[in-house]
Amino acid sequence: MSEATLKKGHRIALDCMGGDLGPSEAVAAAALALREGVIGPDDTLVLVGNEDNLRLLAMEHRNLKSPRVIFKHAPTIVGPEDAPMTVLKSKRDSSMVIALELLKVGEVDAVVSTGNTKALVAAGTIKVRTMEGAERPALAAIMPRREGHFVLLDVGANPEATPEHLVHNAVLGSIYAQSSLGIAHPRIGLLTVGTEEGKGGARINRTHNLLKAMGTSINYIGPVEGFDMFGDACDVVVTDGFTGNVILKTLEGLVYMLRELVGNKVMRNPVYMAGGIAMFPLVRELKGKLKPERYGGAPLLGLNGLVMKAHGSSNRQGIVSAIRLGLEALGHGAGKQMQTALAEANRVISATPEEV
Amino acid sequence: MSEATLKKGHRIALDCMGGDLGPSEAVAAAALALREGVIGPDDTLVLVGNEDNLRLLAMEHRNLKSPRVIFKHAPTIVGPEDAPMTVLKSKRDSSMVIALELLKVGEVDAVVSTGNTKALVAAGTIKVRTMEGAERPALAAIMPRREGHFVLLDVGANPEATPEHLVHNAVLGSIYAQSSLGIAHPRIGLLTVGTEEGKGGARINRTHNLLKAMGTSINYIGPVEGFDMFGDACDVVVTDGFTGNVILKTLEGLVYMLRELVGNKVMRNPVYMAGGIAMFPLVRELKGKLKPERYGGAPLLGLNGLVMKAHGSSNRQGIVSAIRLGLEALGHGAGKQMQTALAEANRVISATPEEV
Repeated sequence: MSEATLKKGHRIALDCMGGDLGPSEAVAAAALALREGVIGPDDTLVLVGNEDNLRLLAMEHRNLKSPRVIFKHAPTIVGPEDAPMTVLKSKRDSSMVIALELLKVGEVDAVVSTGNTKALVAAGTIKVRTMEGAERPALAAIMPRREGHFVLLDVGANPEATPEHLVHNAVLGSIYAQSSLGIAHPRIGLLTVGTEEGKGGARINRTHNLLKAMGTSINYIGPVEGFDMFGDACDVVVTDGFTGNVILKTLEGLVYMLRELVGNKVMRNPVYMAGGIAMFPLVRELKGKLKPERYGGAPLLGLNGLVMKAHGSSNRQGIVSAIRLGLEALGHGAGKQMQTALAEANRVISATPEEV
Repeated sequence: MSEATLKKGHRIALDCMGGDLGPSEAVAAAALALREGVIGPDDTLVLVGNEDNLRLLAMEHRNLKSPRVIFKHAPTIVGPEDAPMTVLKSKRDSSMVIALELLKVGEVDAVVSTGNTKALVAAGTIKVRTMEGAERPALAAIMPRREGHFVLLDVGANPEATPEHLVHNAVLGSIYAQSSLGIAHPRIGLLTVGTEEGKGGARINRTHNLLKAMGTSINYIGPVEGFDMFGDACDVVVTDGFTGNVILKTLEGLVYMLRELVGNKVMRNPVYMAGGIAMFPLVRELKGKLKPERYGGAPLLGLNGLVMKAHGSSNRQGIVSAIRLGLEALGHGAGKQMQTALAEANRVISATPEEV
């Protein structure tokens, strides 16, 4: 498969071994992706993992007997507790690293993995390398808001982001919002703890000045607070990987708490139960809006190739959603735009003195 | 009023001018606090603000004609957008600064303010000074979880906390959880982005090592993630003021979004409306659990005197709740315990080398 081949479709490698639900769910996701047409007639899906195991599981899904489905053997697995260094040193034959290797050598266009985030960030960065001008990748999540969605990044790739990293996150997130949410000029907000200028410390101030200096090359609207995210303040919320990850986990925790609180009480009270039945379509709609499988994958932006991280607990719908998001991003050829935008950002960064 | 006076009750200064709902709400809160017995027979409430204005408003509440209610005139007001430096330089005659001055000179035991957080943190730190051994104060919020509550700190006083500040937050938060939640040995968790050791960067690692080195002087259970907060993982969640503030605002935003989403749909659909009526007690209970007025005030821990920050949008119940929390904290004489705990923390900090 050389780059010269006239290629209409895309090739996606699915790391089948890293998810909490195991390879059977990944294989079921592959079958679902084909059935739903997410993997189109010109696309190829490479299932990476223990080949015997995967082939056995694939026998349960007739549509996987397709020339569009390829198996790639990987003898070991990256576990949820494996440290990034362990993975890079002693798990080079894992499904995660082999999938990334396929991306590196150009045999696939994207990798989707439900594996351990830290390992995927480290192995992705080492194998696939960051784009010229980017130092660190950023994980970009699509989040629900009152109307529609917004992009939150970084949700965990780079916990100690510098102002320069945050500016890179802004330009990468802007292009991702264009391709994933279809917004022509996404409004960029910088997450802080008070929207007056001067709040949030030196790192935020420097980032704010750099983003202002970017002029019209991005649609920067200024600092935003956590409260504003779920309104209609902006389309991309920029923050460091520590804060972004905490937000993501906090929301998951809160939504889970509310579901438990409401669910337990409704189950124990026939009047509530009756009310709940009347409201069932609303409950289903809310669940749909909030459940992570709707948003599936977070791409690791800023690498020389598309790596999609899907939630470790993803079910088949979640994995299919990550594959779909990946194919959409590939379809928009966002990589080249990101490269150009990073170069422009770095030009502005080096032209903007530390104290403005 | 000298310290030598045999004093049974406590004296609280209420900054009446800084809240979004204005002085009429603060005065109504004062009346409510007396009526509900929050201000007991031996306590004194000092209403700080434009005296003519306050006396006029007080005429609407008969129980404010009490020797337990004192008026203290302050001609200016700290606005929500006033920068801390402006307040310290040109608003020394504001209700906020005059209330803090009363605390400084010992005329009151605590200050409750709905004013601008940054200004209150700065003016509180300058006027009341940090305890010996503490460099910065921390705002501690009481948050709902599946069962009961937990303390989250810092929610916005010190956005750029060092490992030493985080250790101070841990010991201060532990004592606050004892007095406010009545937990004998509060479990302390350090908020991070992955519970394996080594995640979350150098600052978190150093903090983790210091907290471990504290041994049995605090009940440190290790790193926790945002997801765990709403379960039963720990009673005190320690983080920096940037992350903590973002969490607080994010939760407010999400809860508001859910309320809007559900509310709008229920109002437009008679079947949902019927279901909603059946579930009304549950909805009310959930609202009670989540609404900020239940938790009212966040103390600025680590100062030589008790400063309670109430939400800017607090209604009378919210302000009364802040007064109640303040009086509870005073009743426990937590200040001296905090002083001792800070000394112990600093002993451990200086005995623990940077790389463990």
